[in-house]
Amino acid sequence: MGVLRLGYLHVRETDLASARQYYGETLGLTLMNEEPGKLYFKAWDEWDHHHLVLEEGGAGLAKFGFKVSGLDELERLEKGMRNFGLETVRMSKNETLAVGQGVRAVLPSGHIMELYHDIEYAGTAVGTVNPPVRPRHLEGIGVPRLDHALLTTEDPALMERLFTEVLGFRASHRLVTELGDKGDLIATWLFTTHKSHDIAFIKGPSGKLHHFAYRVMDWSAIRHGGEILSMDNVPVAFGPDIHGLTRGQTIYFFDPSGNRNEIFSSDVETAADFPTVTWTREQIGHASYIGREVKESHFSVT
Amino acid sequence: MGVLRLGYLHVRETDLASARQYYGETLGLTLMNEEPGKLYFKAWDEWDHHHLVLEEGGAGLAKFGFKVSGLDELERLEKGMRNFGLETVRMSKNETLAVGQGVRAVLPSGHIMELYHDIEYAGTAVGTVNPPVRPRHLEGIGVPRLDHALLTTEDPALMERLFTEVLGFRASHRLVTELGDKGDLIATWLFTTHKSHDIAFIKGPSGKLHHFAYRVMDWSAIRHGGEILSMDNVPVAFGPDIHGLTRGQTIYFFDPSGNRNEIFSSDVETAADFPTVTWTREQIGHASYIGREVKESHFSVT
Amino acid sequence: MGVLRLGYLHVRETDLASARQYYGETLGLTLMNEEPGKLYFKAWDEWDHHHLVLEEGGAGLAKFGFKVSGLDELERLEKGMRNFGLETVRMSKNETLAVGQGVRAVLPSGHIMELYHDIEYAGTAVGTVNPPVRPRHLEGIGVPRLDHALLTTEDPALMERLFTEVLGFRASHRLVTELGDKGDLIATWLFTTHKSHDIAFIKGPSGKLHHFAYRVMDWSAIRHGGEILSMDNVPVAFGPDIHGLTRGQTIYFFDPSGNRNEIFSSDVETAADFPTVTWTREQIGHASYIGREVKESHFSVT
Amino acid sequence: MGVLRLGYLHVRETDLASARQYYGETLGLTLMNEEPGKLYFKAWDEWDHHHLVLEEGGAGLAKFGFKVSGLDELERLEKGMRNFGLETVRMSKNETLAVGQGVRAVLPSGHIMELYHDIEYAGTAVGTVNPPVRPRHLEGIGVPRLDHALLTTEDPALMERLFTEVLGFRASHRLVTELGDKGDLIATWLFTTHKSHDIAFIKGPSGKLHHFAYRVMDWSAIRHGGEILSMDNVPVAFGPDIHGLTRGQTIYFFDPSGNRNEIFSSDVETAADFPTVTWTREQIGHASYIGREVKESHFSVT
Repeated sequence: MGVLRLGYLHVRETDLASARQYYGETLGLTLMNEEPGKLYFKAWDEWDHHHLVLEEGGAGLAKFGFKVSGLDELERLEKGMRNFGLETVRMSKNETLAVGQGVRAVLPSGHIMELYHDIEYAGTAVGTVNPPVRPRHLEGIGVPRLDHALLTTEDPALMERLFTEVLGFRASHRLVTELGDKGDLIATWLFTTHKSHDIAFIKGPSGKLHHFAYRVMDWSAIRHGGEILSMDNVPVAFGPDIHGLTRGQTIYFFDPSGNRNEIFSSDVETAADFPTVTWTREQIGHASYIGREVKESHFSVT
Repeated sequence: MGVLRLGYLHVRETDLASARQYYGETLGLTLMNEEPGKLYFKAWDEWDHHHLVLEEGGAGLAKFGFKVSGLDELERLEKGMRNFGLETVRMSKNETLAVGQGVRAVLPSGHIMELYHDIEYAGTAVGTVNPPVRPRHLEGIGVPRLDHALLTTEDPALMERLFTEVLGFRASHRLVTELGDKGDLIATWLFTTHKSHDIAFIKGPSGKLHHFAYRVMDWSAIRHGGEILSMDNVPVAFGPDIHGLTRGQTIYFFDPSGNRNEIFSSDVETAADFPTVTWTREQIGHASYIGREVKESHFSVT
Repeated sequence: MGVLRLGYLHVRETDLASARQYYGETLGLTLMNEEPGKLYFKAWDEWDHHHLVLEEGGAGLAKFGFKVSGLDELERLEKGMRNFGLETVRMSKNETLAVGQGVRAVLPSGHIMELYHDIEYAGTAVGTVNPPVRPRHLEGIGVPRLDHALLTTEDPALMERLFTEVLGFRASHRLVTELGDKGDLIATWLFTTHKSHDIAFIKGPSGKLHHFAYRVMDWSAIRHGGEILSMDNVPVAFGPDIHGLTRGQTIYFFDPSGNRNEIFSSDVETAADFPTVTWTREQIGHASYIGREVKESHFSVT
Repeated sequence: MGVLRLGYLHVRETDLASARQYYGETLGLTLMNEEPGKLYFKAWDEWDHHHLVLEEGGAGLAKFGFKVSGLDELERLEKGMRNFGLETVRMSKNETLAVGQGVRAVLPSGHIMELYHDIEYAGTAVGTVNPPVRPRHLEGIGVPRLDHALLTTEDPALMERLFTEVLGFRASHRLVTELGDKGDLIATWLFTTHKSHDIAFIKGPSGKLHHFAYRVMDWSAIRHGGEILSMDNVPVAFGPDIHGLTRGQTIYFFDPSGNRNEIFSSDVETAADFPTVTWTREQIGHASYIGREVKESHFSVT
């Protein structure tokens, strides 16, 4: 009930041609549609029409959307956001291609968020009758599905309040300056499914995208992905490694416009009744588990 | 909301001493408590007090429990079961050690099911402050957590109706004799989380346990588990292999009393808005993906 | 010095068209040449012109060849075989396409063996200057290289003598009926490299092929291979599993004519000064490490 | 014939107590013997008495030894070294504990090398009769065996000549400043087995150790090793990653005295008749395959 998952991201690209090649051939996404200045992509194991819209011009996150479980839930969440003090506007069907009516708000973090219930059904690449475990041929990394995004905000605590009190998320992990009352929140990992996070916020400039991540199967898929990144000369920011924080296995890398991507697997399973795990800044080294140094560059943003 | 997960199983063991050694040293569970004729176990990455109670005498499933999200939900589900025609009884706190008040019913499949909200909090082996990704030492296979169970029933369609209409589950996969109206339901895989299933029912004698499964990290953990099974002379029923149906990676094996266990990983991610996948009997070979033959012995029950 | 490795196999196929598709698209070999009734294949990570010649008609092994380190070694080994009592004949350059002059003998096991030093150089798919770790695109399983073969013989002890005393191999593993003087040799695994075996002999009818194997990288490649086998409806004989004997990770399966193939990885590293490991028949269960039962069908031959 | 493998390393340690704990509990080696100021270790899958002698005082490589195939070979290699212009001295049995008579030389690179044939037989942890695939319990990383070492030298080309012309090695890979006649040799990877290298030399100060490496099974063992390194607070220099050069999967890290270690797997298989692969300096980025940047610190030495 409520927010089902991170549904789509609209990401700005300085050059649409190189982005098309990168997301199509390196990540292995399927181009679902194109309009002047826009490309719509889905991954092979997703049901919905698209999870990524590339928009020509600049870099960074134009907006993102959460799929919610019903139109009544849409209304309930809209009311909740207004009570929290957000301004919301209604968006009509097909304002975004293939997406039904919804609610849009500018978050305190400066990001534009949309909630929607309907999106055209496209179906996975393996279908619903006696499917193989994956398509026989996959292009490039062949990522199966979108997983999560990490955004920057000047006030992580405020964003955590909004997501937990209004949008029904819970915090699986929190990074604080120190334990106890004097500790400030540096970052928060928020889930509505049973994964370590569907969205996360980290202290930083308003409105920026740290990265968005694709789920892959396991550590061998992380290596396979890394091999493709190397063959395709994609700049790698970090990894392969394990995140101590979330246990996720990971590589970070950059799309042609400098938007940071991640392939991610094997993070901790969460549930609504689990306690939140706390990380303290002085242990942040172990947060990048094996390599152990969190490179400065890692916390820069687009 | 509603059922959070499969919380515990009470399993009968002909010999408690050998079962204690098997679940403690081969599977690597932690013994949490013991009473005359009963042993309570948890796995290292679980928060709740126990997920397994071994009861001396015989073999098979004595009962199982689902944790639900609140006492109000407990009441709502109780009402639903009564409306469905089930008789329910209330159980009081500590009727099962460490478990709060709840509701018990005999299912049409002949199994005893309990719903409860409270269970003592025990905490994982790695804690909630700057935890390592796993304990440095794990005994045997070192399974992190209980995952699901497969039960037999004379009427899978009835059980599917009960679980989807009353208990809030959805079917991720269905095995049918043939596509279309003439097809009969042979088995159904039901989820309330985002996994391929939390419980499943397959046509067979009433009240029996086919297997219960532990979640492990990935295909390398499946192999590691298999090595331990071999070293400990545990009889293996099937695997290592992939289930075409669910994509789960698997080994089936038997505890000292002949109860079937599974280690399981990397199944498909589900969500409430995903369509159900259908498998037909003539493709059941691919349901055991690589080995391809479903051995006769595989569908026998305790 | 002496025998470098198992260089090529000539294998009979009832239907060359289906064999061409299987070895080309399922195993992912490269077709190097074709003649009436013959197809020549190499794998992507091999340097020599071919390792497999498919010959139309029947099934089983027509002959096999070992590459030796020089023409002087060829002569030395020829002399040794004659002293051992074998008849040898000289073969001339290009009697087999792309292969230089050599020596041919019918072994006591009934198999035809060829020794040669020269074979046309073809080069790997990644070249010798700044190569990627693998080709970006691989077809099907994409096996990197031939590894070993297992042949049947009525007298394993005699074959072991020939290979160790004359051809410079050593036994890494031996399977015996029992320990001590009364034990008979059932099978012997022989190496000239640092692998668990380059060739092996098991008691059985004269002149038969049990299987030939391709080396793959690791346990994740074994799974990947198994997925392709399932998608391509290739009958699987055994696995995925670990061989307790050699520690090799494995799947056995059949080509369209019923010749048994294997994908194989991660076996024990050997050296000329290592002791031989002995397995006894009553522990043969653990020889198939996880699955534990050696199926009857496994020791049947083409 | 000739050099069988890298047999042992004598490594200096500033503090023997911390080194003992590190090599025993983090790497999981077995302490075989101790003398004042010396500790002798073997790994679980090795046959010989030891491969590592820790010597109290300082850091770096005291000496290393190659095991050769016989006493006649020892003499032949001694003669070869003298002809090459090296001074050699004979060492007597038990000059190094458990090691037989041999030949010692100071190499042009400033390193002390010993050749020997006999070393006490200790046996692996799993024995030679029906062994399990590994010990049921392994401490820490549980490395199975020593693999190779990388040494620095002011004249890599001279060392390559010595090893290929006298000691019977071949170069599997060479790193050059540029292709063609003007290219200078920066580093050379030399093998006498069928691995990518048993020893390698890179341009740098005379007499230094870049690292020595332990063979582990595969990419999942690399991750497992990395988890232990993190839990034990071992400083990691590089990885997990793939070496484009050799394809080896890797993590580099430091022992308590700052000697660099590596865990290594899945490198290319070599043979005496394979061509040498050449890497050029401008592609050195891909030599660290995924992470792509060769950190400055990586090429510093003890």
